[in-house]
Amino acid sequence: MNIPQSSYPRVVIIGGGFAGIALAKKLSRKEFQVVLLDKHNYHTFQPLLYQVSTGGLEPDSIAYPIRKVLQGYSNFHFRLAEVAKVDTDNNLVETNIGTLKFNYLVVAVGSETNFFGNTNLEENCMAMKSIPQSLNLRSLILENFEQALLTDDYHEREALMNFVIVGGGPTGVELAGALAEIKKGILPKDYPDLDTRVAQINLVQGGERILPAMSEKASKKAEDFLENLGVHVWKGMRVQNYDGKVATTNTDIEFKTQTLIWAAGVKAVRLNGLDAKDVLCRGERLKVNEFHQVNGFENIFAIGDVAQMESEEWPKGHPMMAQPALQQGSNLGDNLVRLSEGKSLKPFQYKDKGSMATIGRNKAVADLPSFKFQGVFAWFVWMFVHLYFLIGFRNRVVVFINWVYNYIKFDREARLIIRPFKKTYQTD
Amino acid sequence: MNIPQSSYPRVVIIGGGFAGIALAKKLSRKEFQVVLLDKHNYHTFQPLLYQVSTGGLEPDSIAYPIRKVLQGYSNFHFRLAEVAKVDTDNNLVETNIGTLKFNYLVVAVGSETNFFGNTNLEENCMAMKSIPQSLNLRSLILENFEQALLTDDYHEREALMNFVIVGGGPTGVELAGALAEIKKGILPKDYPDLDTRVAQINLVQGGERILPAMSEKASKKAEDFLENLGVHVWKGMRVQNYDGKVATTNTDIEFKTQTLIWAAGVKAVRLNGLDAKDVLCRGERLKVNEFHQVNGFENIFAIGDVAQMESEEWPKGHPMMAQPALQQGSNLGDNLVRLSEGKSLKPFQYKDKGSMATIGRNKAVADLPSFKFQGVFAWFVWMFVHLYFLIGFRNRVVVFINWVYNYIKFDREARLIIRPFKKTYQTD
Repeated sequence: MNIPQSSYPRVVIIGGGFAGIALAKKLSRKEFQVVLLDKHNYHTFQPLLYQVSTGGLEPDSIAYPIRKVLQGYSNFHFRLAEVAKVDTDNNLVETNIGTLKFNYLVVAVGSETNFFGNTNLEENCMAMKSIPQSLNLRSLILENFEQALLTDDYHEREALMNFVIVGGGPTGVELAGALAEIKKGILPKDYPDLDTRVAQINLVQGGERILPAMSEKASKKAEDFLENLGVHVWKGMRVQNYDGKVATTNTDIEFKTQTLIWAAGVKAVRLNGLDAKDVLCRGERLKVNEFHQVNGFENIFAIGDVAQMESEEWPKGHPMMAQPALQQGSNLGDNLVRLSEGKSLKPFQYKDKGSMATIGRNKAVADLPSFKFQGVFAWFVWMFVHLYFLIGFRNRVVVFINWVYNYIKFDREARLIIRPFKKTYQTD
Repeated sequence: MNIPQSSYPRVVIIGGGFAGIALAKKLSRKEFQVVLLDKHNYHTFQPLLYQVSTGGLEPDSIAYPIRKVLQGYSNFHFRLAEVAKVDTDNNLVETNIGTLKFNYLVVAVGSETNFFGNTNLEENCMAMKSIPQSLNLRSLILENFEQALLTDDYHEREALMNFVIVGGGPTGVELAGALAEIKKGILPKDYPDLDTRVAQINLVQGGERILPAMSEKASKKAEDFLENLGVHVWKGMRVQNYDGKVATTNTDIEFKTQTLIWAAGVKAVRLNGLDAKDVLCRGERLKVNEFHQVNGFENIFAIGDVAQMESEEWPKGHPMMAQPALQQGSNLGDNLVRLSEGKSLKPFQYKDKGSMATIGRNKAVADLPSFKFQGVFAWFVWMFVHLYFLIGFRNRVVVFINWVYNYIKFDREARLIIRPFKKTYQTD
């Protein structure tokens, strides 16, 4: 892997998401050699992936080159690599580009879509956890409309324009809102030959309310917003199977659809060698103590979505979101520095800054610790917070310009099929 | 194909490039039914593809949804389709989505990279004529640097960082300049572990000067600019073969390189059914008269790169560039309207507005009809002209912002491997 020798202890971070980057920043100019491994050469701002899928933002605006984040840091090394295994006995990480010895290992590999073992769902559903997946979804949506134009069969056309989103968390809710706005504002203009009223957006939620992690008022209001936009919200319903054409549910309702987006759950990305019974929790997360140490190890840490730190307040660990990841990365960074200075470790304290979701133009819901509100003001706060946390000045400016443009023009211009998803459209 | 019946005569346009779009705009609200076919759902601003390849611009900023261009036009229909054949006897276009009858057919399919029949070159070289190709090149460049980090073999590392661009026209020159700036400004910061001085940029030109279509002064100045940036300019040299590792030339010089970009020529895209001897010219262009009518046909026209209109001033037809395409599309639009009004056709008169090329920061060469100049002012004019011709207000703003940012920060941030090109890096 050609990592130079160093007199400092080596910290290997696997994953350049919110947690890994926050940690890396803390270790700048400290007495460590830091090696960051990721299978992509960019950091992804996942909360805005749904806007890539719906043509509102370019993928490049919400991704940021990891090398650029680390520019100018000394003793920092990035390698584009996939980790095959962790050898905990010998403190080694085995990857597709070689094996690396570590003094400290930080697992920050994040989460992936959870199909709960149903291979039919996994094969036929669209996921939206990475930039390539989001671009695939963008292509599929557009390809389906192109195809809907061509068919004389009403039922086929209906299935091509029927969108089923499974999962009523922030991702599902935000995507449903964006699709509803496309249906209303863009489709009739783009497809004058097509009766776009046929297009339907269904949001299927297993529990009794959408946005279950938020306040009841936020759930209720989000549901109102969605229904005003024409989204069908199905509560207490679970999609059980999908063969690429028909989705069956736990009720007698079936959906004939060519686009099923699975946003119904995530699980931690699994790492070979770190999968012993006393380490793995529900959802394949790694059990860590309050110092982020993986159960049974002193020099192996886990942060972000992959880590489950159980406490009285959070018996199932912290939510798998950006905030805990950022805070954990930062705390672990401080702790590693304290360790090198011979000081004692600081237990992690999660500061819940609340959560929010946007449903569409001028509509959002926000639960802050001291203040819960919905509507236009929440929507402004949502935009401000997302711009603030986006990495890179250029990205912020470009995203902001796009939002202003989309708002004024009721438009989303990035509706390009650059990487065709359906085989019938693959010409490049 | 589900195109509605119309009492107006049907104009089928194949290709949504500069020529096809310019024509379509002219036919808005006139007494025609217009069907535009393209294998992509977007128009590509080809002059800026090299900036996509070098991470300076997002692909979405230089592409524009064709449906958006045509929004609000009546009697307009876009179909995402690949044309298989033109049946000139029966006035039919056969495509992968069905067959379409036409009253008038306009061929505006543009050009593609010309490897002059050398399949080795075609298999192993990178082309840069479409957005997917430009993204592949962007990925390859970045992947090669990641790989260069990993090898202990000096010669392999050298080959991974050796760039050979074949063709000294505007595309080759602009790409060479951009790569030279990346080498100087970005690589040393992104790859502190790598001796990036090893990276070389070679521009190989068959003729005795680069930019042969421009003035001698422009050629000379462009060459000076490139050499000041550290580009090796090889004149009177032709690459004869490339097996993916070594490029051989007509001299005893060989290039060991993992990246050979072929910008040495284009040929018209060929259309089955329009390939008779009396129709095809050199470079597979279609011979047209001064009214854009393809030789031997009254109702079949060709415009843009694919058309060869020979005249005293332009014995080999007009240059295969945006300007002739735009002007031909516009003139044919006027002529079709005149035809429908029973008026006589207007012969095409090409107004040469000159040409220009940018070499890098503050450096460009411009040959306008009345004024030839080089340097900073040419560079400003180049930027202004490209922004002016870009389609879409949002695209213009986003491109402008990117340019300002890149200029101030000496940066190009879109260096993301989103669609991996090398098999070793394909994880999605």
